[in-house]
Amino acid sequence: MRHFDVEMNDLKSRLMEMCGLVQEMIKITIDGLVKRDQKLIDSVFLLENEVNIHEIVIDDKCLKLVALNQPVGIDLRFITSAMKINSDLERMGDEAVNISEKAVDLIKYPELKPLIDIPKMSDIVQQMVADSIKAFNGNDVELAQTVLAKDDEVDDLKGKVISDLKGFMVKLSDSEMIQTAVDLMFIAKSIERIGDHAVNISEDVIFMVRGKDIRHPKTNRAE
Amino acid sequence: MRHFDVEMNDLKSRLMEMCGLVQEMIKITIDGLVKRDQKLIDSVFLLENEVNIHEIVIDDKCLKLVALNQPVGIDLRFITSAMKINSDLERMGDEAVNISEKAVDLIKYPELKPLIDIPKMSDIVQQMVADSIKAFNGNDVELAQTVLAKDDEVDDLKGKVISDLKGFMVKLSDSEMIQTAVDLMFIAKSIERIGDHAVNISEDVIFMVRGKDIRHPKTNRAE
Repeated sequence: MRHFDVEMNDLKSRLMEMCGLVQEMIKITIDGLVKRDQKLIDSVFLLENEVNIHEIVIDDKCLKLVALNQPVGIDLRFITSAMKINSDLERMGDEAVNISEKAVDLIKYPELKPLIDIPKMSDIVQQMVADSIKAFNGNDVELAQTVLAKDDEVDDLKGKVISDLKGFMVKLSDSEMIQTAVDLMFIAKSIERIGDHAVNISEDVIFMVRGKDIRHPKTNRAE
Repeated sequence: MRHFDVEMNDLKSRLMEMCGLVQEMIKITIDGLVKRDQKLIDSVFLLENEVNIHEIVIDDKCLKLVALNQPVGIDLRFITSAMKINSDLERMGDEAVNISEKAVDLIKYPELKPLIDIPKMSDIVQQMVADSIKAFNGNDVELAQTVLAKDDEVDDLKGKVISDLKGFMVKLSDSEMIQTAVDLMFIAKSIERIGDHAVNISEDVIFMVRGKDIRHPKTNRAE
């Protein structure tokens, strides 16, 4: 096996590791919210540091791979895609942290019913994250496309969560409950955004494999 | 002047153009919201397409620059940074579109007082966007650092906007007004996120110039 191939495989496994950490952050933060478990929520902040270290190491590895091997074609696209995917993964981790920061406050207040759909959103999005990286490592365009297909489902669920919460707000005049509803809205928004990052990764995969850019208009209305 | 330098300058000017478009999108969408001008808001959707075309062209240019010139050191970091900055700019454009989509609904309803701080947020963030790209093109670490410094100011303003809106919500039991308050919260969030992208760009600039990674812990709590 060429040294370059060994290095490329190492890059793949590092991205997989980082992806595993990010998936864990998402899972833990939502579990912590559902179980109202402060310890669980706090553990997300520790994982964040690991993810940040991975990001820097992977970026550095990509730069060295290009500088020392001067790849072209799909190898070059793989490495530049890896750099983008790296930053998408890191930003997913940031969103998990954003959720945890809200969850820490949320669990101090009484529960609101509309939490119910948030774990459901989270489950779909965790699958999107896993599949997008699997697609990257396997040059699997079909799998990448299934991630793109799930985007609308997540957007719809988010819309439902937010309109449920608005419905509650109309009835609520208690400021603590308003606070809770607002926090939950931003959590739904963060989960949706994690899904958007998985979509970005999947589009990079399709570009990498086909060498043809399929971005836009698919993602540019993501909200 | 070497052909490579000519190409690098062309890349810089394309990024400047794209940045100009994105700044225009942000300015127009907030002006449209303030003036409650549907035509102005709609024009953002047209600019979005131009931004998307720029993104694809710039990415392609970066790949060709690496493949054909096999740059190393700061030249390589410049090009890989340009790819990241390209996607940050495009995502800023997406946020401007997100704001416009909300603004289209918002102007149908009576105005809420807390709009006042949103244009202020937007002004600061537009400056951050401009400075981050100026810093990139001039390898200007000091300017990049001023962008980082503005991040907290924007976060604080966003916090103020959202708590003002929560205060309103407690008093509001009218569902249209709740809708308005919620939309404004997400707009504040989008503006903040545009600032976060400017921070990402500025960190890339500092990395590019110094070859040393300064990411984390600065941005990873951005929310």
